[in-house]
Amino acid sequence: MSSRRHFMKQSAVLGMAGLVQPFGSLAAGRDTSKQSSWADGSRLVVSISMQFESGGQPDNAESPFPNNMLPGFRDLPGATWYAYGYKEGVQRMLDNWDRFDVKVTSHMVGSAVLKHPEVAKEIVQRGHEAAGHGMDWTTQYNLPYEQEKQFIADGADAIRKVTGFNPVGYNANWLRRGENTLKILQELGFTYHIDDLSRDEPFIIQVNNKDFAVVPYTLRCNDILLIEGKHFSTDQFLKQVKMEFDQLYEESARRRRQLSISFHDRIGGTPQMVKATAELLQYIQGHKGVSFKRKDEIARMTLADKTSIRE
Amino acid sequence: MSSRRHFMKQSAVLGMAGLVQPFGSLAAGRDTSKQSSWADGSRLVVSISMQFESGGQPDNAESPFPNNMLPGFRDLPGATWYAYGYKEGVQRMLDNWDRFDVKVTSHMVGSAVLKHPEVAKEIVQRGHEAAGHGMDWTTQYNLPYEQEKQFIADGADAIRKVTGFNPVGYNANWLRRGENTLKILQELGFTYHIDDLSRDEPFIIQVNNKDFAVVPYTLRCNDILLIEGKHFSTDQFLKQVKMEFDQLYEESARRRRQLSISFHDRIGGTPQMVKATAELLQYIQGHKGVSFKRKDEIARMTLADKTSIRE
Amino acid sequence: MSSRRHFMKQSAVLGMAGLVQPFGSLAAGRDTSKQSSWADGSRLVVSISMQFESGGQPDNAESPFPNNMLPGFRDLPGATWYAYGYKEGVQRMLDNWDRFDVKVTSHMVGSAVLKHPEVAKEIVQRGHEAAGHGMDWTTQYNLPYEQEKQFIADGADAIRKVTGFNPVGYNANWLRRGENTLKILQELGFTYHIDDLSRDEPFIIQVNNKDFAVVPYTLRCNDILLIEGKHFSTDQFLKQVKMEFDQLYEESARRRRQLSISFHDRIGGTPQMVKATAELLQYIQGHKGVSFKRKDEIARMTLADKTSIRE
Amino acid sequence: MSSRRHFMKQSAVLGMAGLVQPFGSLAAGRDTSKQSSWADGSRLVVSISMQFESGGQPDNAESPFPNNMLPGFRDLPGATWYAYGYKEGVQRMLDNWDRFDVKVTSHMVGSAVLKHPEVAKEIVQRGHEAAGHGMDWTTQYNLPYEQEKQFIADGADAIRKVTGFNPVGYNANWLRRGENTLKILQELGFTYHIDDLSRDEPFIIQVNNKDFAVVPYTLRCNDILLIEGKHFSTDQFLKQVKMEFDQLYEESARRRRQLSISFHDRIGGTPQMVKATAELLQYIQGHKGVSFKRKDEIARMTLADKTSIRE
Repeated sequence: MSSRRHFMKQSAVLGMAGLVQPFGSLAAGRDTSKQSSWADGSRLVVSISMQFESGGQPDNAESPFPNNMLPGFRDLPGATWYAYGYKEGVQRMLDNWDRFDVKVTSHMVGSAVLKHPEVAKEIVQRGHEAAGHGMDWTTQYNLPYEQEKQFIADGADAIRKVTGFNPVGYNANWLRRGENTLKILQELGFTYHIDDLSRDEPFIIQVNNKDFAVVPYTLRCNDILLIEGKHFSTDQFLKQVKMEFDQLYEESARRRRQLSISFHDRIGGTPQMVKATAELLQYIQGHKGVSFKRKDEIARMTLADKTSIRE
Repeated sequence: MSSRRHFMKQSAVLGMAGLVQPFGSLAAGRDTSKQSSWADGSRLVVSISMQFESGGQPDNAESPFPNNMLPGFRDLPGATWYAYGYKEGVQRMLDNWDRFDVKVTSHMVGSAVLKHPEVAKEIVQRGHEAAGHGMDWTTQYNLPYEQEKQFIADGADAIRKVTGFNPVGYNANWLRRGENTLKILQELGFTYHIDDLSRDEPFIIQVNNKDFAVVPYTLRCNDILLIEGKHFSTDQFLKQVKMEFDQLYEESARRRRQLSISFHDRIGGTPQMVKATAELLQYIQGHKGVSFKRKDEIARMTLADKTSIRE
Repeated sequence: MSSRRHFMKQSAVLGMAGLVQPFGSLAAGRDTSKQSSWADGSRLVVSISMQFESGGQPDNAESPFPNNMLPGFRDLPGATWYAYGYKEGVQRMLDNWDRFDVKVTSHMVGSAVLKHPEVAKEIVQRGHEAAGHGMDWTTQYNLPYEQEKQFIADGADAIRKVTGFNPVGYNANWLRRGENTLKILQELGFTYHIDDLSRDEPFIIQVNNKDFAVVPYTLRCNDILLIEGKHFSTDQFLKQVKMEFDQLYEESARRRRQLSISFHDRIGGTPQMVKATAELLQYIQGHKGVSFKRKDEIARMTLADKTSIRE
Repeated sequence: MSSRRHFMKQSAVLGMAGLVQPFGSLAAGRDTSKQSSWADGSRLVVSISMQFESGGQPDNAESPFPNNMLPGFRDLPGATWYAYGYKEGVQRMLDNWDRFDVKVTSHMVGSAVLKHPEVAKEIVQRGHEAAGHGMDWTTQYNLPYEQEKQFIADGADAIRKVTGFNPVGYNANWLRRGENTLKILQELGFTYHIDDLSRDEPFIIQVNNKDFAVVPYTLRCNDILLIEGKHFSTDQFLKQVKMEFDQLYEESARRRRQLSISFHDRIGGTPQMVKATAELLQYIQGHKGVSFKRKDEIARMTLADKTSIRE
């Protein structure tokens, strides 16, 4: 009990002296006593993803249907569930982004781009960012170095060839990069990746002794996690992301904060989800100082900012 | 980075010239710059399913009870859960459809029809469509051609014999048609199927070199998926389908749109679900230009319409 | 297509002649053209269960904790989760029933009664019904006739001995009665069972050539199914049961209807659930003509009523 | 039926004589006819946990990511999900506690403390309680006596060394203490544990023939159970805990009641959860007589109170 008593005394002293430390002052190895902010004057940056993957999925890919196909047969309705993504979902979201004058980042699976080039092209032509998402739906963390490099490069080539956009950002399948992924991305000219959930703002890491940006992704404002994984209804999705925004907006008065929201063609593109998204965007845009940015913009701003967090 | 810069320039040009393409203009291989509409002047068509399956299920069929019966024993309470469908569920829904003057499509499992012909008959006598749903609850995608044909024909015969209604629409168990299903349906005189989730409006495909209608079904406004699969509460079901309606109603000002909602006798027919459905129908009917249509009507209208989407 | 056309014609005739049948007229083999009602003049009967089981559960019984105990060890926190039932849950619910002047039915596991006789006794002394729930938590559907008879009789004896109440109603573990259960219950002097979900009102069946009452139970207004099984939040539970009530209340103007709600000591007895229940009871009691009845009363009324449904 | 009739008579007598027993009078072997209260005059005590565990988890620990890593590879995004706890989560919660002037208890895993001492230190420096949570994430219920003792002592040493705080409370991994745990805790000078869900107030047990306090924990107001386990949205969490508070606050007029709420660094520390928590605290603080207490205070008050429940 002695050290307990010791603490009580120490604590009282701290209290009297007003020495209780402000937010984050001791944590994570950096001095945040100076408040941080976005270089362009934004109060809060909102970063939206619209992943384009459908059409590129393997046969009998996971879907809302029971995962019990007999061997040798194709899950035909499952394939139509995915087809919704390129036939309806992307288009509906594109219209919604236009309605709210928002530009987003679209991580594109190479095989989806090649199967439906017109969809990939339209995304880019309407002002959105095309980013890398691998050549197909395979896990890549277990690939040997050269194979993984080819896998990433092929996906980027598909995007470049079809859309004319040079991808500089990367998202691995299920975020599962391997030990070599970042080195490969740096070698291939990528400037940022998103497969990190550790912060509510972008930061800089060293890869191959050079700066590389991390623009954090989200699971908790992510349609595939919430709608298909956790079985949220669309009004739950809306309420939860609103609460996320409320808190980050409040914090952004004192500190650089980023809200990340993620959609996937066949899920975020349904009427009920676009309705939820429209209500969300209307709510967010009712607040001053919020800017919507593509992840390439965020990465560029972060890399150029001397006050960015470095790890 | 060169193609990246190239894009920024190109994008700017596009922006200045106002060349950003309107909705859907490049996608899915068809010209939708002309707005589409329903041939009968409806603004939005709502298509409701009321599947009649209970009584025809196999012993120890999947239910809310734990799936752990010892071999050789019957799941007696599970059977009463299904019995609710023909003893209470269908009747309650029929009354609700009458209350709102709505006609629906009932895909009927042949074995259920034979077990409870009075239920099947009443559905038809009250003005609803009887459609095919196979002879029993077996998967059909793995059946050889002739066996599958018999399976479909037997189910249709049961419906015809009992109700006097000739089914022209088809729904496979869990939507899982096989590679031969559509050919067989075309041969047997069916005019449409619903085992497709790829669009928010009906379309035409070629089967045996003849037109065949696809009237898309739904998972996201489907009681079995949401209530039993995703464990939604009934108010979540109501909110989600309302959001689906809101968005489709908005889009239907510019384009042919269909809202599909699906119920199953033992699930959609509970008091809490019929309460939700009544609130939903009241909400929907408060909007101008919405018509509720049976799927046979939608298929007929689609097949006769030169502007229908063709795939 | 001929029978299709035939139907359209027939349907039109039916419509013109006003021959569309009223609710339930053809279904389930009985004439319901005459509206049904409760013998005692109640408009709607609400039947609440408060199952008393905790303390009687086997070691390492299923709980919210991960089901992964190493063999040979006891799940100590799991046991405290159950203990909540007899230490807090039942008491809180009893107070709530008193507050709203409601009497309920408590199906009691024999082993729980013997472990905590003071709880069982208090339930009965405060005016509630004690009913059979087997001697312990074992499945009974697979027991040989004599063993099952002993199992049921032992549980009933425990209740009689401890509470002085002679149980006349029965609920099998997970509702899973076997092929012999009803015969045994009839032999042992029980007058009703609840392991049936097929109707929203009680009915009479023949067991050993004598009348036996079925007082239907519920999964969709059941705390263990919704809170522990489907992971509802307590406000979802409240909303869903309210919707169930709304619809049944509406129907009860024309027909005999029963609302069944079920609680279990360790789940329904938590503060959050009792709060939900209190709001629910307040809502229900704001409607005229609703009576809350114990299941023994419902069974007695049903058996004495010539207009009861017979199957 | 004779004992049934007997009961009805007896029950009537009880009713007439007004002998129905008040709350809890017969249960759980203690006389509660005298109302209980908190020694310090609080009406209701709220006890919040903020578990500090992240950084100390084993490789590929359970996370929202699919649990399907190929052997020999590290789940890199999973690790960033945990890192959120010490990089953002704890800091945000600490600010929130300050905003509402609330002190909490932080059960700290030893390995997390050693990995991120600055976080552990700040928690203590801002006035919160550091409590034991084992040396790492291993299950301890299966350890031999001496090994388990070392495991607990090592964790406590880490806390003492890093924070200067002497932990007196304990929480086992997943609450799963073993048969020896309490004896060891008593020997090591701990004064309370929380791995018990059986009551809504603290109580005293005998361990090694000495008093030991039990300060009950919660699953039903617990972020890891509700958000990650049951997949609640954050508004569901908020609503459910509010309902828990409402009922306990009502009961606390007559009886000593404790509300326990639990957070974990990487879950309770997200923006959406801190928003929910802020709304919750605002709601609670709008009620008179509520005090927020650290569990060491509650244990001390309980052990010193002659009216504490003893088991």
